[in-house]
Amino acid sequence: MEFRIRFSGKSHDYTEEEIQTVVRTIKEAEPYTQGRHMQAFQERFAGYIGGGQAFAVCNATAALEMSAQLIGFEPDDEVIIPGHTFTATAYPFVKKGARIVWADMDLGTRVVTPETLAARITPRTKAIVVVHLYGYAADMPGIMDLAARHNLLVVEDAAQSLGTDVGGGKSGALGDFGVFSLHSHKNITTLGEGGVLWVKDERYTRIVPLLRHNGHTGFDFEREHYWVPAMGNVDMPELDGRFLMPNNFCLGEVECALGAKMLERIDRINAEKRARALTFIDALAGFPELEFHRVDTTRHNYHLLAARMTSGRRDEFMAAMAYQKGIQCVVQYYPLYRYPFYQKIGMGQAECPNTDRFFDHMVSFPFHHWLSDDDLEYMLDSTREVLLSLR
Amino acid sequence: MEFRIRFSGKSHDYTEEEIQTVVRTIKEAEPYTQGRHMQAFQERFAGYIGGGQAFAVCNATAALEMSAQLIGFEPDDEVIIPGHTFTATAYPFVKKGARIVWADMDLGTRVVTPETLAARITPRTKAIVVVHLYGYAADMPGIMDLAARHNLLVVEDAAQSLGTDVGGGKSGALGDFGVFSLHSHKNITTLGEGGVLWVKDERYTRIVPLLRHNGHTGFDFEREHYWVPAMGNVDMPELDGRFLMPNNFCLGEVECALGAKMLERIDRINAEKRARALTFIDALAGFPELEFHRVDTTRHNYHLLAARMTSGRRDEFMAAMAYQKGIQCVVQYYPLYRYPFYQKIGMGQAECPNTDRFFDHMVSFPFHHWLSDDDLEYMLDSTREVLLSLR
Repeated sequence: MEFRIRFSGKSHDYTEEEIQTVVRTIKEAEPYTQGRHMQAFQERFAGYIGGGQAFAVCNATAALEMSAQLIGFEPDDEVIIPGHTFTATAYPFVKKGARIVWADMDLGTRVVTPETLAARITPRTKAIVVVHLYGYAADMPGIMDLAARHNLLVVEDAAQSLGTDVGGGKSGALGDFGVFSLHSHKNITTLGEGGVLWVKDERYTRIVPLLRHNGHTGFDFEREHYWVPAMGNVDMPELDGRFLMPNNFCLGEVECALGAKMLERIDRINAEKRARALTFIDALAGFPELEFHRVDTTRHNYHLLAARMTSGRRDEFMAAMAYQKGIQCVVQYYPLYRYPFYQKIGMGQAECPNTDRFFDHMVSFPFHHWLSDDDLEYMLDSTREVLLSLR
Repeated sequence: MEFRIRFSGKSHDYTEEEIQTVVRTIKEAEPYTQGRHMQAFQERFAGYIGGGQAFAVCNATAALEMSAQLIGFEPDDEVIIPGHTFTATAYPFVKKGARIVWADMDLGTRVVTPETLAARITPRTKAIVVVHLYGYAADMPGIMDLAARHNLLVVEDAAQSLGTDVGGGKSGALGDFGVFSLHSHKNITTLGEGGVLWVKDERYTRIVPLLRHNGHTGFDFEREHYWVPAMGNVDMPELDGRFLMPNNFCLGEVECALGAKMLERIDRINAEKRARALTFIDALAGFPELEFHRVDTTRHNYHLLAARMTSGRRDEFMAAMAYQKGIQCVVQYYPLYRYPFYQKIGMGQAECPNTDRFFDHMVSFPFHHWLSDDDLEYMLDSTREVLLSLR
């Protein structure tokens, strides 16, 4: 079916200047990977989010997997993860030996809170993964207090929340590990795939380069001639006496140059999305059938525009939007514990009533940045008409 | 130090037409990953190498890791891998539980042979990894006969040998799994990072998409409305009753479009490199100090131009080339069993006398495709002069 407004997998268009950054880097870069553009991007990224060290990686899943490796799970160790998120938030922790305990969301903000997390802490809990879902930064000050009291490490999955802040700092740079996505769907993308792992502890920053790139490192002895051997050394990343298996999670130079360039525009994109979201939400204030999460500060970047239908008529609403209006609303973030993947490995149990309630009644509107003003107005008018028709 | 001819990490320049493919895809692709350009690239790649199914991945290491997963190693299972190769050939098998047994090379061809492999087979051997190193296709007909007799699976690491053939078929499509690299160093590259996993067995082709992309798959029930839930299903890849953990090894649309475009030029690049290599080798026929591997057929693409010094004066040769002539020759492919990485995990033992002998006397000349004819002539003259000065 052809939609008038589709739920696009492309978040934004590129400007001519951004395309020229790609072309210039293609013509000038040597090598095409692991070079100065990666270094420059990492420095600019760390500067943007306020310090620490940023590592460019091939995607956010890779950053999550490295976080899981650095945390180091022993058999039966638990990690608390929201039930309402994308599967890539969670399965890398399974791969690295953790047992997942699902945390519920707050129904108003759709993210975890110190309270929903605290309810899941056991003597086996080793870490918490906080997802700033939809682009809203969860209560990191409260969560970090909780983590400190229980001696837990905190991973921020800031895949959707780049540029948002809470408690005076940028999301993704407030915990022990920060994970960012530069995937096609995200507010800025490095040609469709890409991500960043952020860390600040020197124990981690020292070994992430080896973890990311095949264990490559320097020799610890003077080489007779600097070009013999040209290959450098290959060693086992070690942390507190543990061996960590390396990976190949590199991001190319062109993508890194583009990422650095896109950082110039992230605040503007976020502000434009937020302004549009507020327009849309406020224009529907007379329709209690749709409950939005309204935040008029930089704590929300409205990566996505999601609402909960309080009328119980979500599927009818979506069908009317699609078939009568040509607008492709979608339902997102299947509670992970309902997937066969997690059920087959014994992680299909959860007590997440808000997650279930939200998911079973949620609607996500098309909200890519390249939506036109006309599209937005048409979507608003259509939403009003469909809601009235269902009264 | 600034070299007149450096050992470049960039294999080739891009033509204006190739750059325009990138620009056009940036402007047109939606989404920027996992779309029609990936499908088209995979089909064209499989067509180029003669059938089977090709899967675009973020790098060749990812393809090797998925091969290791598909093979499925039990504790103490062994995999035979050449000692003379890049570390990414080997460590993915360690990650997936295999014990590596190192095979020696043939001194003339620098690759493994049915004989050097046969010498390493034990009752625990489950698979063989053949590396077509330097761009020369090993004796796949003989190796496949050996594998059939011992019921072994064969992975071809064709990272450097794209486009070469042996026994009537293209390297990388002659075993059970084929691994290709599109890294910055390779004869064609998708902006610096990229790779392909090739398989033909339907048991594997069915689950590689899940293995590559987070376990994403379809639901096995009819959805009420096709857009509910929009996210699709997430399931556990299964093979012969074994669970295989998924990964995120995706390659973006722009890179895939460029890969498809570059396939038009791979045969020409290979032919040009081979012609130059033969010119260089033949011009040095009067210098037995340098022993090259001369192959004037499409079995060798001369991705790299390597020689063994028979005079025992390799380091002096390299120093003179660097300091007197400004030419950055390098030494490549440290025998893997000498690295701390493999020594620390108990895989530091090997009986590979040819590998040791070759490595300790080898020289790899700068041989990127964008070397000019003048550069090549200067390198030839310089090589002659340095060799004469060392007599």
